[in-house]
This record gives sequence, C-alpha cells and structure tokens, in this order.
Amino acid sequence: MAIVQVSITPIGTGNPSISHYVAACHEILRGHPEVKWQLTPMGTIIEGDLARVLEIIALMHEAPFAKGAVRVSTLIKIDDRRDKLATMEAKVRAVEDKF
Amino acid sequence: MAIVQVSITPIGTGNPSISHYVAACHEILRGHPEVKWQLTPMGTIIEGDLARVLEIIALMHEAPFAKGAVRVSTLIKIDDRRDKLATMEAKVRAVEDKF
Amino acid sequence: MAIVQVSITPIGTGNPSISHYVAACHEILRGHPEVKWQLTPMGTIIEGDLARVLEIIALMHEAPFAKGAVRVSTLIKIDDRRDKLATMEAKVRAVEDKF
Amino acid sequence: MAIVQVSITPIGTGNPSISHYVAACHEILRGHPEVKWQLTPMGTIIEGDLARVLEIIALMHEAPFAKGAVRVSTLIKIDDRRDKLATMEAKVRAVEDKF
Repeated sequence: MAIVQVSITPIGTGNPSISHYVAACHEILRGHPEVKWQLTPMGTIIEGDLARVLEIIALMHEAPFAKGAVRVSTLIKIDDRRDKLATMEAKVRAVEDKF
Repeated sequence: MAIVQVSITPIGTGNPSISHYVAACHEILRGHPEVKWQLTPMGTIIEGDLARVLEIIALMHEAPFAKGAVRVSTLIKIDDRRDKLATMEAKVRAVEDKF
Repeated sequence: MAIVQVSITPIGTGNPSISHYVAACHEILRGHPEVKWQLTPMGTIIEGDLARVLEIIALMHEAPFAKGAVRVSTLIKIDDRRDKLATMEAKVRAVEDKF
Repeated sequence: MAIVQVSITPIGTGNPSISHYVAACHEILRGHPEVKWQLTPMGTIIEGDLARVLEIIALMHEAPFAKGAVRVSTLIKIDDRRDKLATMEAKVRAVEDKF
C-alpha cells in the first residue's frame, strides 16, 4: 500500500482555467473503486497497491490529450512505507495528535 | 493570493516515522494566522500573499534542523493565478461541480 | 516520447548520505539501453516511450528497499508533448538559443 | 549552501512552446552571479545561500507575468544539507564514483 499524490496539468491550452481537464482525469479515477482517493486544492491523493495506482495514473495522464491538449505536465509523488500499514488518514492523524 | 503546497522531509534521521518533525513545522505555521492552510496526507497547502507564504515556508524549513536533522528536503509547489481570485475551496469546487 | 525526471529518496536510513541507494537505482536504469538518460544533481532525467519509462522507474523505486530501506519517497515529473518530437537536448537548446 | 531545483511554467498561454518564458526567468538568474546554476531539460538547478536563492526564485517567478501570463505554476525542490558542504558537482560525482 502506497500513498501517491498526482497533479496533471495541460500546457498551452489558451485558458488559465483547466478544471474540465482535471475533471476528465477524475472520471478515470472514479472508475477504479479498488483505490481510495482524496481531491485536494493541489492535486489528488490516492492510496492503494503501488503498481495499480501507477497504472491508473498512466490512464489519467491520457485524459487531457483525449480532450485536445497537446502537452501535459504530470507530477507524481510516491510515499511508500513497508514497515507498517500507512494510510492517508493515519498520516494526517499522526501530525494532528501532536497538537 | 497564491495557493502553495509544501512538504518538508528530514533525510537520514534513523527512523522512518517523521511526524514529529512535521509537527514542528506546523507549529511555526500555526503562529501565522494571516494565511489559511490545510493539512493533507502528502503535505500542507497554504493560501495567502505569495511573499508572506514563502517567508513562512522558509521558517518551517528550519524546524527539522532545530530538532536535530542535518539534511532536509523541501518540496514547494506554487499555483499563482492573477486573472481572478483563486482559493483552495474554489479550486476543489470547480472540479467537483463537474460531477 | 516523453521526458521524465525522477528522484528516489529513502527516508529514515540513519545517514544523510544516500548516494549508494541512488547508485542502486541507477544500476537498474543502466540495464535499459532503450531509454536515454542524464544524471543531474537533483535527479535523473529519462527520455523515451512513456509507458516504458514508467516501468523502469517502478523497478528503480524498488532498489532502495532491496538495500534495506523501509520507506522510499519518489518524485516523478513527466513532460509529455505530442505536437512535435521533444528531446532533452532540444529543450535545453530552445532556452539557450535565446541568449 | 543549498542546492535548489526550480521549474516555472505558465498555464493557459495558448501555445505549448514556453521556452521564451523560461528564457525570461533565466535572464533574471543571469543577473545574479552570487549563485551557481545549471540548466537542465527539466528545470534549473541553483547552488548558493538558501535565503538568497529563494529571493532570486521569487523574482524569476514574476518574469512570465511580466510577459503576459496570468497563471504560473512553479515547482521548487530544496536539498539543504548542513553536516558537510554539498555542491552540485559533488552530488553527481558521489553517484558516478560507484560505477
């Protein structure tokens, strides 16, 4: 189980608003109930089997091209911890519990 | 007003659990009510005047050193939009409204 | 053809020097002559078929675990342009030619 | 002394080629000989006093707006090591020496 943040940005689309491209990426993600996810103002965080998460991200990365973008910049950050089960919820709680 | 994600990671601390370092960074942030923020499983998202946010992040980046770390890796992603007021809440809503 | 930067960082290893982990990742990469790459002070940049590059990065990400790390943070940035052939060399030249 | 990678990307400019914006950022950087830098296909790596480097990056981030962009995405990765002098050159050599 890994926790992975992804943000997918089309470049050169002629409009600084890109939320419909982001929504197209999300539609792909919503078709994969085998992973948990959370939408944030700076990207989407996905929790699940790493290989599976990377496969889904590869599909999400195609979505802006399908909507007409010709250049896409995708940032992926993987946090992969194998000494204990890490979850999105536990990571946030570990910090908040210290206040 | 910019929206900025930051994640601060000490390297080589001898323990894969680093939430007490993250909490030390957050203590700095909590001392600055002039910015809004949101803790996520993969970093903290801050909304505010860009110069002010970068100053606060520079202070947060020092916190792990103050707790004994000797190497710190900090990732900062700035989304700075000037044609309209962008907020953390509006960015998420713009995507969610499409479902 | 995409251009992809990757940096792979073990967390909690007890020593701030991590170059032998990075070298283990590179050994994997050097076994894949179907992609071009360039080592920089802040990561490795790989040029090639995107699906193939992501497969290789997934293998590289395993290398620190094989050397004993229990937590690995991996940052991947994809620049995927499909309106023309983009290469590492051409991207640098496009900027340098303006001086 | 820190080593910092920055990449600055205008969003919504109407053209997937953005190297003239990148060149405008570089013009700022070239006016600051107190830091060392290296242009790579995926960003610019800067070595110098961290506070100074962040000031220069804040100026670079303004350059695309000055050229007409209304939204700019800037990614900054700081590697700050204080137990020994880290340089761009030494980081690459530490990996290459293992082959």
